[in-house]
Amino acid sequence: MNIAILFGGSSFEHEISIVSAITMKKVLKKSTITYIFVDANREFYLIDTEKINSKLFSSGEYKKSKQLILKKGGFFTEGMFGSKQVSFNVVLNLIHGRDGEDGKIASLMAFYGIPFISPRTEASVLSYNKLYTKFLAESLGVKTVAYEHLSKNDERKISMDFPIIIKPVRLGSSIGVSIVKEASELDYALDVAFEFDTDVIIEPFIEGVKEYNQAGCLTDAWELSIVEEPHKEAFLDFEKKYMDFARDSQVLAADIADDLKEKIQETFKKIYDPLFRGSMIRCDFFVVDGEVMLNEINPIPGSMANYLFDDFEGMIIRLAKHLPKEQKITVDYQYIHSIQQAKGKA
Amino acid sequence: MNIAILFGGSSFEHEISIVSAITMKKVLKKSTITYIFVDANREFYLIDTEKINSKLFSSGEYKKSKQLILKKGGFFTEGMFGSKQVSFNVVLNLIHGRDGEDGKIASLMAFYGIPFISPRTEASVLSYNKLYTKFLAESLGVKTVAYEHLSKNDERKISMDFPIIIKPVRLGSSIGVSIVKEASELDYALDVAFEFDTDVIIEPFIEGVKEYNQAGCLTDAWELSIVEEPHKEAFLDFEKKYMDFARDSQVLAADIADDLKEKIQETFKKIYDPLFRGSMIRCDFFVVDGEVMLNEINPIPGSMANYLFDDFEGMIIRLAKHLPKEQKITVDYQYIHSIQQAKGKA
Repeated sequence: MNIAILFGGSSFEHEISIVSAITMKKVLKKSTITYIFVDANREFYLIDTEKINSKLFSSGEYKKSKQLILKKGGFFTEGMFGSKQVSFNVVLNLIHGRDGEDGKIASLMAFYGIPFISPRTEASVLSYNKLYTKFLAESLGVKTVAYEHLSKNDERKISMDFPIIIKPVRLGSSIGVSIVKEASELDYALDVAFEFDTDVIIEPFIEGVKEYNQAGCLTDAWELSIVEEPHKEAFLDFEKKYMDFARDSQVLAADIADDLKEKIQETFKKIYDPLFRGSMIRCDFFVVDGEVMLNEINPIPGSMANYLFDDFEGMIIRLAKHLPKEQKITVDYQYIHSIQQAKGKA
Repeated sequence: MNIAILFGGSSFEHEISIVSAITMKKVLKKSTITYIFVDANREFYLIDTEKINSKLFSSGEYKKSKQLILKKGGFFTEGMFGSKQVSFNVVLNLIHGRDGEDGKIASLMAFYGIPFISPRTEASVLSYNKLYTKFLAESLGVKTVAYEHLSKNDERKISMDFPIIIKPVRLGSSIGVSIVKEASELDYALDVAFEFDTDVIIEPFIEGVKEYNQAGCLTDAWELSIVEEPHKEAFLDFEKKYMDFARDSQVLAADIADDLKEKIQETFKKIYDPLFRGSMIRCDFFVVDGEVMLNEINPIPGSMANYLFDDFEGMIIRLAKHLPKEQKITVDYQYIHSIQQAKGKA
């Protein structure tokens, strides 16, 4: 299979996406990889798979690569002798943060009829925005941590006890996130968060909470990863998470009871199906007093959480063969015809 | 001002969009109109403003028009002597239903940096899906009619008393909507709705409920329409609504008390700001026992609800000058540089 990896984007996580994309070369060994880079200016470039490395981007040298244009059915190079389509079977959306996770790339691929692995537009919007993720969880009967919501211009009044954690609603990778231990630190933490977003959610910070990650997708059957217990300090800062995104070796499954594992997996399935069909996501759960709570949905996890799977590549290939189909709409102009007739009579 | 009207789309409401677009010619009198048609196959065409009429589309003759390609910054014609940009100041998204209201067009315009009047991607997804509109209203403290939600594969069990109204969650213009008076009619009505969508919401059908429409937007100040009391039978079927979309003459304001009008307008503002900035929407409210309830958000109303405004054209021009700005993200590759240094040391 020829997999086009779409990466980069106009995103605070642009560089993380580059690291994720390069990591894919180590884990997609049997497939042909076609690298399509979206630069910070949102121009598309076809990157030579042999030559890809992080310096190509940081040096600006990628600009010597062929530029691509997105049109119906695919990406095209434009040359003296007309337009030529880039050949691949499926796009793997690996743009973290804005563009990739907010629904823009999903919309572009859907509009132009390109087969793609990614959350679709609706799923993107609901998982990219942490406030909307709360709505979604609630509607599915999935528990989440209690929260309050503040917009930039709201009065900075919260009713929760400290310590709390403040998160911009739309960003991943801990950008703009702060733990606030007392009231005197609140203003600064909100200033930081509002640098990145117009809205924040505020949750109680639960010291030493048990956290488990579950990744997976639905192909012709459920394909679920091991349950991972991420090792973390208070919380990972951006740079540590960043290094984490280059992971390509498998980790050990969390040592948990079978019934907890089952609860986590059932909750994952409830969230995934049908909204996230066509994508491979990771859900991060908290477990408090045996209760499984959704912390966040990672719609495009770093290096696709490949290290949580036995057969990551096989799963991606099977997923590419089980993408949701768009509903067919036939336009036959019957209403315009009948209006024209009605007007004719009038 | 040169306003590019984007219309058509791969949508059940493709034809309605054509009618809306043609109507704009009668109401945008001082402006230059550039018509950009998205055909059912999602190809873009530049339509001659002088020649536009519904038959151009129903006959397929539009295919003789110049085809356009969407690229960074705008729409382009491709010719023997290179690519030429179509000139306009702003795009007015007038695609009803799929593509226009589901976030695809908003994503395309945002990605390519084209100034556009339309709900943005998030606002589109939350208003296009009637279930998500319920979540949104709830989070804003706006009341809605009680509802139940069914997915295609769910057991067809509802706990509400008849009569009920069944609506596909993602469609406008009454497509797939049924009023069900007794249990024996339920299965057929659900079959109809599930022809169009994977999910439906079910609400009590309130005979003779008072309904009021409020349209508007935020430019440098609030610009709110008159409150309209739509005349309707049980409910408008597709064909009647369709004819309604060609309206271009003003209607009378509903004869309601000032405090009810104020409640309606305050509720409208709560829904609109900040999520819908950059768009002109219409909210349809029910009033039951003096309580204002959101029925639905019409993110791209038929012929832009022009008939509800005194100075529709002036408002559109002011809105074009007050579009939300995308947050600037600078990519400086500092993390890649620091990883390269860390690797160098290892």
